[in-house]
Amino acid sequence: MFESVKNRRTIRKYQQKDIAPDLLNDLLETSFRASTTGGMQLYSVIVTRDEEMKAKLSPAHFNQPMVKGAPVVLTFCADFRRFSLWCEQRNALPGYNNLMSFMNATMDTLLVTQTFCTLAEEVGLGICYIGTTTYNPQMIIDTLHLPELVFPITTITVGYPDGMPAQVDRLPLEAAVHEEVYHDYTPEDINRLYAEKESLPENKQFIKENNKETLAQVFTDVRYTKKDNEFMSENLLKVLRQQGFL
Amino acid sequence: MFESVKNRRTIRKYQQKDIAPDLLNDLLETSFRASTTGGMQLYSVIVTRDEEMKAKLSPAHFNQPMVKGAPVVLTFCADFRRFSLWCEQRNALPGYNNLMSFMNATMDTLLVTQTFCTLAEEVGLGICYIGTTTYNPQMIIDTLHLPELVFPITTITVGYPDGMPAQVDRLPLEAAVHEEVYHDYTPEDINRLYAEKESLPENKQFIKENNKETLAQVFTDVRYTKKDNEFMSENLLKVLRQQGFL
Repeated sequence: MFESVKNRRTIRKYQQKDIAPDLLNDLLETSFRASTTGGMQLYSVIVTRDEEMKAKLSPAHFNQPMVKGAPVVLTFCADFRRFSLWCEQRNALPGYNNLMSFMNATMDTLLVTQTFCTLAEEVGLGICYIGTTTYNPQMIIDTLHLPELVFPITTITVGYPDGMPAQVDRLPLEAAVHEEVYHDYTPEDINRLYAEKESLPENKQFIKENNKETLAQVFTDVRYTKKDNEFMSENLLKVLRQQGFL
Repeated sequence: MFESVKNRRTIRKYQQKDIAPDLLNDLLETSFRASTTGGMQLYSVIVTRDEEMKAKLSPAHFNQPMVKGAPVVLTFCADFRRFSLWCEQRNALPGYNNLMSFMNATMDTLLVTQTFCTLAEEVGLGICYIGTTTYNPQMIIDTLHLPELVFPITTITVGYPDGMPAQVDRLPLEAAVHEEVYHDYTPEDINRLYAEKESLPENKQFIKENNKETLAQVFTDVRYTKKDNEFMSENLLKVLRQQGFL
């Protein structure tokens, strides 16, 4: 299995081949073995196979082609509703409409999501995380009919890979591992740790295509701008409040 | 690998046997292959092996014995500092001191954490998630010297299992999987989905030990109370602000 993870790539193009329902269910059921806060299983997964539903979800994900192109789209949601309903039916007063509970449910959800992905890749499927889920949560909530205390955390597209893209770069191990305490980065550390990334032809090309001076500027000025982040943060707060988590 | 995940248990007791540094590094490096927002790798892992450091971390985790008992404690942190430092050194203005960026970094962090756990279990190690990390973030920040834009998300203890505990229950698959749209739960659904959980002798024992009428009350009145959640939510907001994410 190490090999499957070591060789993994995000897969954005899929064969025209369905995922057998039994396989999908086995993958989901196995992934639910992931650790969960107090055994509460604070998540729900919405399975999208219907073409019309994919078309409805697509704009929430800025029409990234994976959403319509994958046989299966999975929206993993933080869910304190099911547990709260159970509490109410059992003469117990749930107190989960708050940020801490949202964090707990988010963790449960992402542990299941990532377990699913590792297992799916092990059996030859390919996945792509769609990071736009928390950028446009309201559109997803409306499309998937998510009630209060349910919040879409992330989406993955899944299918049999059509082609094998190049593997993308990672920083050296030492960049993200600290012994005993956090060792802050000197300017020399930063230069050393990012040197390989900056030397890659694809990343140089990326600077040119975006008319920037440095690779970092492609991130700050184009891909993940302060303005967008601030706008989406406000929006996230608003939708968290509306879904009852704040 | 399915088998390793299907048979998994949280391991809270460990043999007095170290984890070889090469194995730990291999596990960490492989887990960094997990998907990451825009390739930014928004995480850091603090490795605790030193007994004195474990003793310092222990109170932040309510002195749960796994922290001092495990050969290795790993604190997985959302980290936008390294990336922001790189931006600043490359004439780029980082805009990551906001909630959206915290969410992106949290997701990156948990994907790596869970990949690590799945791999570790595959090679015979046992892990335990320590959910208290976000309950007492300040103590952990102080102990591990976490600077601005670094936030502890979760902690795991790792080691070779000493004994094999019983596997804990999970809800039936249908409890958390929804086809196409969220299917809200009727009272009958809730009764059916929680029936097995409520029938287990260990859960009945749990009610008795806590002097409660229902299993749900053990959660709402003892383990995850509204009052605690609200207190910890306020605290979480405060520390998020202090670390520069709000």
